[in-house]
Amino acid sequence: MNITIIGLGLIGSSMAIDLKARNFAQKIIGVDNNPIHCDAALQLGIIDKTAELNEGIYQADLVILATPVDVSLKLLPTVLNQADQQIVADVCSTKSNLNERVRYHQNRENFVSTHPMAGTEQSGPRAAFSGLFDGRASIITDAEESSEKALKTIKTMYECLNMRIIYMNAYNHDVHTAYVSHISHISSMALALTVLEKEQNEKNILDLASGGFDSTVRLAKSPASMWTPIFMQNAGNVTAVLDTYIEHLQAFKKAMQEQKSESITGLINQSNKIKRVLSR
Amino acid sequence: MNITIIGLGLIGSSMAIDLKARNFAQKIIGVDNNPIHCDAALQLGIIDKTAELNEGIYQADLVILATPVDVSLKLLPTVLNQADQQIVADVCSTKSNLNERVRYHQNRENFVSTHPMAGTEQSGPRAAFSGLFDGRASIITDAEESSEKALKTIKTMYECLNMRIIYMNAYNHDVHTAYVSHISHISSMALALTVLEKEQNEKNILDLASGGFDSTVRLAKSPASMWTPIFMQNAGNVTAVLDTYIEHLQAFKKAMQEQKSESITGLINQSNKIKRVLSR
Repeated sequence: MNITIIGLGLIGSSMAIDLKARNFAQKIIGVDNNPIHCDAALQLGIIDKTAELNEGIYQADLVILATPVDVSLKLLPTVLNQADQQIVADVCSTKSNLNERVRYHQNRENFVSTHPMAGTEQSGPRAAFSGLFDGRASIITDAEESSEKALKTIKTMYECLNMRIIYMNAYNHDVHTAYVSHISHISSMALALTVLEKEQNEKNILDLASGGFDSTVRLAKSPASMWTPIFMQNAGNVTAVLDTYIEHLQAFKKAMQEQKSESITGLINQSNKIKRVLSR
Repeated sequence: MNITIIGLGLIGSSMAIDLKARNFAQKIIGVDNNPIHCDAALQLGIIDKTAELNEGIYQADLVILATPVDVSLKLLPTVLNQADQQIVADVCSTKSNLNERVRYHQNRENFVSTHPMAGTEQSGPRAAFSGLFDGRASIITDAEESSEKALKTIKTMYECLNMRIIYMNAYNHDVHTAYVSHISHISSMALALTVLEKEQNEKNILDLASGGFDSTVRLAKSPASMWTPIFMQNAGNVTAVLDTYIEHLQAFKKAMQEQKSESITGLINQSNKIKRVLSR
């Protein structure tokens, strides 16, 4: 089938690479308003050709919307207007607003609302690679609003990317990703801000940064173009999780201030239970 | 030279491996009150023999104290009492209390107060490996209180471990490590607590955890036996950094609540500046 990918970032380009290599797609058409992304994706052989938006949709059997979540929110109704035959899937990290936006669209059943849970802190087509999605989870939200045909195609596509599919409504999706993804990013970014602020006065402080520090602040490299709209759209859930997170930080602070070693040990032992998740 | 390592954990055992392999040590004697550690270290060939504390010190040219910081605080005066000829170095993550404890000890000049900035979230001799210290920084604190001979030996030892040496007083060390190491651990542990708490009610939430989540909570695997005494001893600095960290988290929260995308973008762009540190 012919697939048009709108948005040639890390996710869109990495999907292109494996969907082509694994023969799910015969032809990949790229749409991106950034000519540098288009040129790079062509040059790297990630896409077969580029097209304008309307032409790209027209030529496709399947359209994948892989733009930042604010852009997708604007583009999706436009794409669906034209998609009376085409199947359309998005890959957005927030789902409630998006699904609400097209809930009563005449072509709603051609659309499948998905979120492949994979990525790195890098961005753009040059950061794309084969295997990004292998073994990870992809979420399909509000599946009952899509046609069987559309669902089956998207399910096959994610199976081709070696992903396990989880079904969930958009509301639950947004709560869960606030916990397992969005809060991690804010945690890293706030940590980077804390250390950078101190460093303004003490130049050599970051000479001492060790491997643990690196892994904890890695996500602070993530681009605002992607993350600002995610935090904006999922603000309610993310701020609720932030409150809980800050409470736990306060518990550490209180135990240290009061010099209660048993309390600190209790907190650490409890946090160690995350091992069973990380060792999977 | 003969080296006695007190504490056969990740750090002590990894030092043993490379100091022997790189011919800095002729013989490594291990001291550990945990017989499982002693057996494992012998079995893995990390040490040549085990000894009781006094015997181990007596037979050594150099004694490395590699126990958790609370144990080191208790043991160091005892070790120094016996070390009228031996050079003694510790590897503690907190320095002010320790240096204060032996400040007026008759053998103080035989002691070098150090902190090799390396480690993983694993522990024990079975987690030890060659190369752990290569390319990392080791801090020598309050160097003016050590003899030239002792300093020279320890400097040569860390050069043999391919570490770059940084000199700093104990106070500055404890401030800096609060920023580049201790806060990262609390950040991870509080994140683990936040997600685990939510998971009690929603069983499948951690199915969704992605690579970003893994790297951010990795340090929450770290053992309380090591970290409780660090947080206890460096409580003043760590709680001060925690306050700053929480302020930055609150800034994210406020910007999200007020739906100010420019503020969120400003925070993320500022945090992105950590790239220049991480890309080293």
